[in-house]
Formats: sequence, C-alpha cells, structure tokens
Amino acid sequence: MSDNFDPRRRQVLLGSAVALASTSLLGLSPLSLAADMALPDYVNWKTPEALIVHSANTLETKRDAIGTSIVTSNEQLFIRNNLPPPPPSIVADRDAWTVAFKGVKNPRSISLGELKTLGVTTVATVLQCSGNGRAFFDHETSGTQWATGAAGCVLWSGVPLKTVVDAMGGSLGDLPYITSTGGEELPAGLDPKSLVVERSVPLRALDQAILAWELNGEPLPLAHGGPLRLVVPGYYGVNNVKYVKQVAFTAEQTDAKIQASGYRIRPVGQGGAPDQPSMWEMNVKSWITQPLEQAKAGRVRIQGVAFGGAKEVKNVEVSLDGGKSWQAAPFVGPSLGPYAWRPFVLIVDLKPGDYRLVSRASDVEGNAQPEEELVNERGYGHNGWRDHGVSIAIV
Amino acid sequence: MSDNFDPRRRQVLLGSAVALASTSLLGLSPLSLAADMALPDYVNWKTPEALIVHSANTLETKRDAIGTSIVTSNEQLFIRNNLPPPPPSIVADRDAWTVAFKGVKNPRSISLGELKTLGVTTVATVLQCSGNGRAFFDHETSGTQWATGAAGCVLWSGVPLKTVVDAMGGSLGDLPYITSTGGEELPAGLDPKSLVVERSVPLRALDQAILAWELNGEPLPLAHGGPLRLVVPGYYGVNNVKYVKQVAFTAEQTDAKIQASGYRIRPVGQGGAPDQPSMWEMNVKSWITQPLEQAKAGRVRIQGVAFGGAKEVKNVEVSLDGGKSWQAAPFVGPSLGPYAWRPFVLIVDLKPGDYRLVSRASDVEGNAQPEEELVNERGYGHNGWRDHGVSIAIV
Repeated sequence: MSDNFDPRRRQVLLGSAVALASTSLLGLSPLSLAADMALPDYVNWKTPEALIVHSANTLETKRDAIGTSIVTSNEQLFIRNNLPPPPPSIVADRDAWTVAFKGVKNPRSISLGELKTLGVTTVATVLQCSGNGRAFFDHETSGTQWATGAAGCVLWSGVPLKTVVDAMGGSLGDLPYITSTGGEELPAGLDPKSLVVERSVPLRALDQAILAWELNGEPLPLAHGGPLRLVVPGYYGVNNVKYVKQVAFTAEQTDAKIQASGYRIRPVGQGGAPDQPSMWEMNVKSWITQPLEQAKAGRVRIQGVAFGGAKEVKNVEVSLDGGKSWQAAPFVGPSLGPYAWRPFVLIVDLKPGDYRLVSRASDVEGNAQPEEELVNERGYGHNGWRDHGVSIAIV
Repeated sequence: MSDNFDPRRRQVLLGSAVALASTSLLGLSPLSLAADMALPDYVNWKTPEALIVHSANTLETKRDAIGTSIVTSNEQLFIRNNLPPPPPSIVADRDAWTVAFKGVKNPRSISLGELKTLGVTTVATVLQCSGNGRAFFDHETSGTQWATGAAGCVLWSGVPLKTVVDAMGGSLGDLPYITSTGGEELPAGLDPKSLVVERSVPLRALDQAILAWELNGEPLPLAHGGPLRLVVPGYYGVNNVKYVKQVAFTAEQTDAKIQASGYRIRPVGQGGAPDQPSMWEMNVKSWITQPLEQAKAGRVRIQGVAFGGAKEVKNVEVSLDGGKSWQAAPFVGPSLGPYAWRPFVLIVDLKPGDYRLVSRASDVEGNAQPEEELVNERGYGHNGWRDHGVSIAIV
C-alpha cells in the first residue's frame, strides 16, 4: 500500500456511475455518495457531521471526529448491524426483556429487571468491528470499507455474566464455549442458521463479560443493542451480541454461519471454516486522528488513540517520517482501565513540507503493532502501522 | 425538613394558578408545568425525557436519569446560564476565537487555534451549580429550585491554564486572583457590572484549571460554553466561565455583581458582600438516584453518586432507616480522578414497608457530609445528607 493511499481512491478509480451503482449493491460505499446520505430513522439522534453513512446498517465515525476526551459519545459512535434492529417496542418496557440461560445447573429465563438486582459493574471498552481498517487492504474485500471509524471507546454498565451464572448454580462442566443469541427478527423463508446473530466465545471470556443495559450514562439505545447486550471487553464487536435473548454454555461453537464460516481469518480466495482463527480477542492498535491533511508550520499538535485490545496498552510512538524514526507520544487523561483506549498527543515543531505521520502502540505484554497487516480474505483485524498513517502537508 | 420532603410539594402547596404564575416570574419552577415545557431551540439536541425545563436558561437533569456509567452525556447534562448564550456564529470558526491575557509578563490575545498547540490534557470533573439542592432549604430562596440535577460528571479536554501562562512569561507577582470574563452579549442600557459574567478564583486554582474546547469527546457545545470555557476542577459551576474572552491575574476580586455580592454564603435576610465566603471549592456530597418511589420486595438495587468536591471522595455509606444505621456502599467502575464522581450500588434484601434511604460520603481528608445544611440566604452549597434522602415504599 502506498504512502499516499486514500481509501476513497478505490471507489474513484471505479469511474463510471454504473460501477458506483454496482459497488453499492455489493455493500461497498463510494464515500462521495455516502457523504450525502441522511441518517437512517432509527439513528436520527446521532450527529450527522461526525458520521459517514455507508448504508442503513453501517455508519462510520469520521477519523477526525474522535477527540481527546477518551469517551466516544453515543451520538458519534459507529453502527454495524448484521441485521436490521428489532422494533422499538422492545425498549418500551426495558425491565421486561428476558434472556434464557442454558448449560447452567439451574437453567431458566431471567428478566432485565431481575438482572439489575444481581450486581452492577461499569467498564470502559473499545468497541471495534472486526473489519475496521478493511479499506487499507490491497486486495478487493467484500464488506464495508471501514477505514478507522468502526471503533469507539465507551462506558457500559451491567451485571457481570459470572454473577448471573453463579446465581444459576454455575455452568455445567466440560462446556468450553459461551454461545449467545441476538434478538433480531429473521426474515421468513430463509435458513435461520444463515442469518441468526449467534456467536460463541471461549469460556475464558467469562472473566470479563457483562450483560449491559447502559451506555455512557444513558439507557442502552436500541441501535446499540438495547435493552440488553452481551459485552465482552477486549473482543471484536461481533461477539458483543445485541438484544441478547439467550446465553448458553456449549460443548461446541454454534454452527450459525456468522460463527462457522464468518469472521474467520483465512487466506485470500479461500472459504471460511470452523478450523480457522475466529475474530475473538482484539490486537494492539493505534492511529492518528489529527491532523489529516495539512497544518500550519510551527507548533503542530498530533493526536490519536491507542489501545491494547485484549491487554492494556503500554505506550505509543509517533513517526514523522513514515517509520524511519520514532518518538514517544504521551497519553492524556485518566486510564479508564485495560480495555479502554487512551488518547495521545504529541506537539512538535514542523517546517513546511510533506510528512508521513504514523503511530505504533505496544501493550503491557510487549506486543507491538506490526508494520504490515496479516493479509486475509475478508480484511479482518488490520493493525499494521504503515497503512494507518496519514500524509500531511505543512504549509 | 421532614423525612418526606418532596421538592415539588412547595409548589403544590402554593395552590392557585395565580400563585403558580407568580412563582414563575420569580424564577421558581412548578415542576408540573416545567415537565411540559419544550426544550429551548439552542439545546434542542438534548434528551427531553431526561430533563426538567425550569426556564430557557435553566434545565435540570432528572434525578433518576443519572446512571452508573460515570459520565453524564452532553444530552443529559444540566444547563444553567446567567445570561442567554452568544449567537451560534461564535462556534462557526472555533479556532478563530481569542482570549486576552492580562497580568502576565507578556500580555496578549491568543487564538484557540494557537492554544491547541501549547498542550493538551483531559480531566473528569463534577460540574455543579452552587444552588444545586436549593429546593431542600426550609426558607424561601430566590433562584432556580434545583433538587439534585444541577450536576453532572463530564470529561473535558483543553490546555492547562498554567501552560498558557508560562508561555506568556508567567503571571506578575502579588496578583492573588485569576479573573475571567465570559463572552456573553450584554443588553444595552444597563450597568455592565450588574450583568457581566466575570469571576475571580484564588491563585491556587491555577494548579488544576484548564481552558477546555472539548466535552465528552465532542467539540464543546455553545450551550456549555463553546468554543472555549475556563474549567476549574473542584469549583462550583459559576467559576467555569463560558465563552471565555479574557483571563487576568488581578490584585483584587472583580467588582462585577456576580462576584462582589452574588454567590456568597450569607445569613438569611442579609445582603451579599465581598467579605462573605465565595462559592469556590465544592464540598463532599452524595445522593441516591434510584429507587425514588417504590420497588418490589426482595433484592433491591440502591444506586447513587458520590464526590468529594475539591478533594477526592473516599467512601460512601447508605442508610435504610433515615440515618440511624449505616452500611458501606461499594463504588462501581474505574475512578476518573479526584474531581470526578463515583457511582455506587448497594443491593439489599428488603421486606414490604416504608423506608427512608439516605447516603453519606467522605473525602480523602476525612470531611464527611453533615446531617444538616448550612443555612444561607441564597440556598448555596447544600450537602446535608438528611434532606437528600428519599422515601420509598417496598411493595
């Protein structure tokens, strides 16, 4: 990928209106069109200036809309729904929502009202789509061409999943997966397994998973999975099942398509299969959010965000010369815990000219962002620092 | 104040429609009317369900709208403006906003664009009006009858004030006050000193004050003082000067009315004067946010918020019997630093009956909430735990 890669270029190169129309049908998003798309009704409360509307179910936060105040507001937070959300009636009486538990000693359904009396915790997490950064792959990838904005850092309140499981006598033995099912309505006449949002995560996720009913201090909006969402801190977005209606401890991963063949790391051109790595724990990542195009010569503020994914981020470095030399960039503000991101700011004196700014984060276990991405068919998990850089002109 | 005090009762007792009309003129707010008032245009992006509209310039967050996710969203945050906000044109080109510095070695005006290149920090603070809790005083107080909702916990990004002062050669000696002026337009024909929002804080506030341009990850909204606001962590809201256009180090406190006689702790019936305590550092405080009226017998979740004010909060206790006996209530979620509030949750088993729930916080220096308020003419600084309790029925 060249130093001057612009994710919009791919669409521009497609050229004709016919090509644009066909890419839309494929789920690709010519940003020149997207910029003019209005917010879908169910998220009409979001901030249009901060978002790129790829489709009704895929909205990306603009790169420079991310600030340094750590949290991403509900109004700026990206949307990625695998299916259209259920009707608003499900949040009319939030406490009446029920989730069924299976694979526990005393299986039963439990209402959100009762869940709220079992325990409460609050955790900050980076919520990130597996395909964030997909636009930077060289090969043609199907799926939304996210650059950096299928990610945000938010605060959730809910009950630890372990607390609920304990209240049901604990999970049965030898069931190594937690399999959760979303409450989306499935279109009739199609194989449910091909559509249902049902995800399995390894049992180790029980350490940090919560059932969340609040987002950034507000009742969890329907668009983000309200009234109740499974949140697995440190895991990619797809594992955070919205409108969760069932949580089961299972011997095997679900055979739903979204798990069995979807969200797998596989060689380009190869089909998805259960023996390929699943998009579970996130990797260490960072990117610069400002400046993106140009800045005045003199003191220049370079800012961005860095996170460790499944492990806490330790530090981040910035390069002004495309990765030849690096300097530490300080974090600003309090740490919101191991699963949050940390804004960083580096202020430097720059003379007029062209610069390639890149950032590289490391987690507390010494994992650093690689220079290049792991190439894979669907364009998942891109954390290569080179592609995430920005070329700016100092004038 | 009785155990069953309801801040709405005062208005209800006033009885007639004439009385209601007259209290409106006085700035009192019959909540039964307020509940039907629409959001003023300049804050039409806020969440109406979460707010009580006392007037166009005073909006209160409903007590049970405060959740456990620590941050108060911009959409839920209270509004208290001493004057109507300036026109939206001042946020059209945010970086062009200038603030004049005086009382420094090299006094000059500096643009927001330049401020952003001097340094960046992020701090969480409780933003609270001096009159929060005014509704709980026994004597008649003029001013908005806030109960608990003239407060929120938010994240600010900006430059430390000290960094800016250092860049101007430091402050001149023997100038013990920082005096800041807001950019509101003053109505013609009236004495500017009687209206201008100009506040002096002691020089010690330089340790933590920032000039903020971002609120909860978004560009600081005009309604909350954008494009630039002086934020003095740990200080009452009035000191956090909106649309700040001048910061001066001064030998004396300003003689503007809002400082000289306003926002002073004074005996009931006495006028305001510069020798009375000014509303600077906040005191330790807490209140329960849920439940407020009733809950089902069995496991009941009691939640609230606690903060130390100018010092970090250390712990909070809850009483189920109006203060006869107490038990520790655990905080939930990460600490966002000494100036933030901490949500607490206590889950208890309750039998049917009537309960008086109260909470009492202490800061790290051992200051605890008093049982009663310090009675004062204008109803400022109420942190007495008794009045902040709630009477609930367990059914």
